[in-house]
Amino acid sequence: MSDDQAAGAVPSFPTSLGTSEGTTITLLGQDLARDLMGHVGFGELAYWLITLNRPTPAQARLFEAVLLGLADHGFTPTAIAARLTYLSAPDAIQGALAAGILGGGSRFLGVTEDTGRFLAGVLRQAGPPPADEAGWDALARDAVTARAAGGRFVPGLGHPVHKDGDPRTPRIIAIAREEGLYGPHLALFEAIGRVHPGILGRRLPLNGAGVSGAALADLGLPLDLLRGVVLLARCAGLLGHLAEEIRRPIAGEIYQTVDRHATYVPPGGTVPPGGPAEG
Amino acid sequence: MSDDQAAGAVPSFPTSLGTSEGTTITLLGQDLARDLMGHVGFGELAYWLITLNRPTPAQARLFEAVLLGLADHGFTPTAIAARLTYLSAPDAIQGALAAGILGGGSRFLGVTEDTGRFLAGVLRQAGPPPADEAGWDALARDAVTARAAGGRFVPGLGHPVHKDGDPRTPRIIAIAREEGLYGPHLALFEAIGRVHPGILGRRLPLNGAGVSGAALADLGLPLDLLRGVVLLARCAGLLGHLAEEIRRPIAGEIYQTVDRHATYVPPGGTVPPGGPAEG
Amino acid sequence: MSDDQAAGAVPSFPTSLGTSEGTTITLLGQDLARDLMGHVGFGELAYWLITLNRPTPAQARLFEAVLLGLADHGFTPTAIAARLTYLSAPDAIQGALAAGILGGGSRFLGVTEDTGRFLAGVLRQAGPPPADEAGWDALARDAVTARAAGGRFVPGLGHPVHKDGDPRTPRIIAIAREEGLYGPHLALFEAIGRVHPGILGRRLPLNGAGVSGAALADLGLPLDLLRGVVLLARCAGLLGHLAEEIRRPIAGEIYQTVDRHATYVPPGGTVPPGGPAEG
Amino acid sequence: MSDDQAAGAVPSFPTSLGTSEGTTITLLGQDLARDLMGHVGFGELAYWLITLNRPTPAQARLFEAVLLGLADHGFTPTAIAARLTYLSAPDAIQGALAAGILGGGSRFLGVTEDTGRFLAGVLRQAGPPPADEAGWDALARDAVTARAAGGRFVPGLGHPVHKDGDPRTPRIIAIAREEGLYGPHLALFEAIGRVHPGILGRRLPLNGAGVSGAALADLGLPLDLLRGVVLLARCAGLLGHLAEEIRRPIAGEIYQTVDRHATYVPPGGTVPPGGPAEG
Repeated sequence: MSDDQAAGAVPSFPTSLGTSEGTTITLLGQDLARDLMGHVGFGELAYWLITLNRPTPAQARLFEAVLLGLADHGFTPTAIAARLTYLSAPDAIQGALAAGILGGGSRFLGVTEDTGRFLAGVLRQAGPPPADEAGWDALARDAVTARAAGGRFVPGLGHPVHKDGDPRTPRIIAIAREEGLYGPHLALFEAIGRVHPGILGRRLPLNGAGVSGAALADLGLPLDLLRGVVLLARCAGLLGHLAEEIRRPIAGEIYQTVDRHATYVPPGGTVPPGGPAEG
Repeated sequence: MSDDQAAGAVPSFPTSLGTSEGTTITLLGQDLARDLMGHVGFGELAYWLITLNRPTPAQARLFEAVLLGLADHGFTPTAIAARLTYLSAPDAIQGALAAGILGGGSRFLGVTEDTGRFLAGVLRQAGPPPADEAGWDALARDAVTARAAGGRFVPGLGHPVHKDGDPRTPRIIAIAREEGLYGPHLALFEAIGRVHPGILGRRLPLNGAGVSGAALADLGLPLDLLRGVVLLARCAGLLGHLAEEIRRPIAGEIYQTVDRHATYVPPGGTVPPGGPAEG
Repeated sequence: MSDDQAAGAVPSFPTSLGTSEGTTITLLGQDLARDLMGHVGFGELAYWLITLNRPTPAQARLFEAVLLGLADHGFTPTAIAARLTYLSAPDAIQGALAAGILGGGSRFLGVTEDTGRFLAGVLRQAGPPPADEAGWDALARDAVTARAAGGRFVPGLGHPVHKDGDPRTPRIIAIAREEGLYGPHLALFEAIGRVHPGILGRRLPLNGAGVSGAALADLGLPLDLLRGVVLLARCAGLLGHLAEEIRRPIAGEIYQTVDRHATYVPPGGTVPPGGPAEG
Repeated sequence: MSDDQAAGAVPSFPTSLGTSEGTTITLLGQDLARDLMGHVGFGELAYWLITLNRPTPAQARLFEAVLLGLADHGFTPTAIAARLTYLSAPDAIQGALAAGILGGGSRFLGVTEDTGRFLAGVLRQAGPPPADEAGWDALARDAVTARAAGGRFVPGLGHPVHKDGDPRTPRIIAIAREEGLYGPHLALFEAIGRVHPGILGRRLPLNGAGVSGAALADLGLPLDLLRGVVLLARCAGLLGHLAEEIRRPIAGEIYQTVDRHATYVPPGGTVPPGGPAEG
């Protein structure tokens, strides 16, 4: 331990994001007011903040398409939680937004990250990328077989509503191809879509959250941040819900619906069979 | 109460945001995959979700410039809180992001909303908008005088670092003028910048958070959502901090710096005068 | 600025709560393991942490009675939000608990703080405390009249369910009397209960949240922390809900109920009149 | 699907916690005002809410001792995050408390749950509980050996400060013995304390978070809620920090300390070696 440390000296805290002095603000090494504001889109900036690399227009287009696909899905549990929190605490909109974001866990919003990690893991262990579709199919077959043998779901497969195909999936793949950004994660993901029925015994759609994970991984986004990208997308959707809740409130009626159908079961008691008895 | 309600019928829950069925997803009345993804930017979508109106390219440019100006300011309390939360709970990045968002309250991130509300309130009580700069100055003089008489700060004035001018302010005004979006809120805000020294006795800069509130109000964003817009911007900045924390962690050293300089004061005791005694 | 500060010296950070060294832990100036654990109750400790004063047994009893009265009220919006967040992110129970706590804002959980502040404000502006019930009634009459003249609700009055009396109110008053802790805030609150019908034109119950604010203020809890006390109480209730959600999940059905009764209204469209049309 | 469901009927939502009607409030099947308030402590209620069983006085004493041991440890990352959030948003204390709770993840606050799960897993796979200390030591030796072979830490071992012993550990064990609540989880945990040096090659203290997990598991708390119990304890500690922050603020100085020692590193640049250069 140096003398400085003994005396309680403080380490420096490096950052490459924002800093200010006098009449300038620097963000990502750029002059914020002169070089970024008015020239750079918000999605573009988000990509840049996360990766420290400015996206090309092609990268920005694919990244923003992914964000759009993940922004909102109607009355999800997270949207309902945000609206109920706004009902309780309308003076603190940050709390309502945070409550919505806190639903970004393993079950619903985790698919994008899970898929990205799964694909990246398979690619890391494989040798050089296959040269043709048959090669990708073989790799996919091994990966799905191993996953199924472990009794685990293959992430990115299946959807409760879009059983015959999630419309975001072909769209993201098409944009990636148009922009020259179709890479190994998407190739492996498509191969999984082709081969899994032969292994799992039924055909499941490649879902939009999964293809988003594949596309983000091909874009070079860090795997640790994939869920963060979903949360950014969802943040816009949650603001839409909060704006709608202010214009046309429904959280009070959701609350009353639950309350009106509550049945009190004494501890140790059993839930009565049959439908709603509280009518 | 109708029979239906007596029987516990549930009201319908209307929404104009997202909905899904079969092989289509609708968002804001559009076909998400076909009409939005690949065509619409993320900032554009956020504006649309909040207002239900698709922004013109001019509106989108000003809106995104505002978002960029608010995205990050280095080691703010919210960025530090997010990093410390990530240090404690790296398995739940949604919690770290939420912790950062929860700092979006009255003191630091509230200026945008406060300024928008203040300007809108003055405009609502005034008659038809002034026809010339002298008219705006008179309106501004009355508003600042009344606010100062009430012993309250004028929101949007002053900055701890940018004492000689916040570079975002002229930039946002310039973009608004270029795009034909310079409206009464910005006009009043600029007039406040001209007249306040004569009333308050010192010249303060028009800060970037304040001009953002004026610009968002001119864009027609609902006042109740201005803080929400700041939070969306900050969400991107916080993801930048979390990505940086993963690449090059500092939260542990922040924690240790605080811990190493902690001084225990028995309850009822007094804090010893002078500098750090724990060396 | 001293040289030390110029060189970036760090101030000391005083605390009177916990500290550790070697084989001892100190909390509130006590030896945690030897003097607190096994001897002090959890509610007692919470009071001590907030006020830095160890409560007497009488104070602890009243404080814990208040906590019990505020812990849970069934399917409140905050309990539902916590359960929905758990449904989405079961791997991060801290997020579900935090989501529930974030509903602790002005509308539902704010009454305790609002009432405490209101009563304390009236007492601060009054002279020496009245000597008899007639004196308290006069003070209460002035306070209610002034509040009503300002068009504002009197906090602590009224309840959606307990229209004929909130059972917690007489209980808290009785415990305060038994323990010799009935002070001016409770006296003023009871007087408001007696005089308000003559001023407001209808009789409203003194609610449990309001009497809790009065009792906590009489106990000497800082007004800025009254909402915090409610949140601590609610934290236990929320854990009860999360435990119940794990044993017997309902959040999925709440979500599906909302989703099944959603009606899509195109932006710009109007909500169809009448009941649920989505059957 | 029944006709009722087709018509959008709502299931009933059972709960055994709180419910209200007219002039009574029921909590856990008891009359809240008459039977709980004034008779039951807050820690006792929390146990009851989580387990649906009223604790005996012995169980309540051990449970509350555990809560006390986990309530506060000075300037932890979670306490700092809560204080910084309060600095930014003092109008929303629920957000500051929530930010502190969000640090309750895997790294710092997860040890209690991890230890409880680990011990319970070993016991589940073992046969009938050993009859003597030699039997426990054998079981512990197998468990530690297997864990170490998997390259994983044994949860509950080691502490950065209390290298020679965490004072909470013998205290909790003593209280459990006094109260007749010393069960298999504590027995196994103590055995791990005896045998691990022979396997791991060094002696580590049994830490307080770990012994808490063992004691809570012996008390019969559900493993899924152990982290929740820690969060409840921490909630009281965080309120202590927020009360202290209001009395004697330090979050502003923490923020400024970090800000003053920030070093801007252009993206793509490298962090300069050596200590603080920003003096």
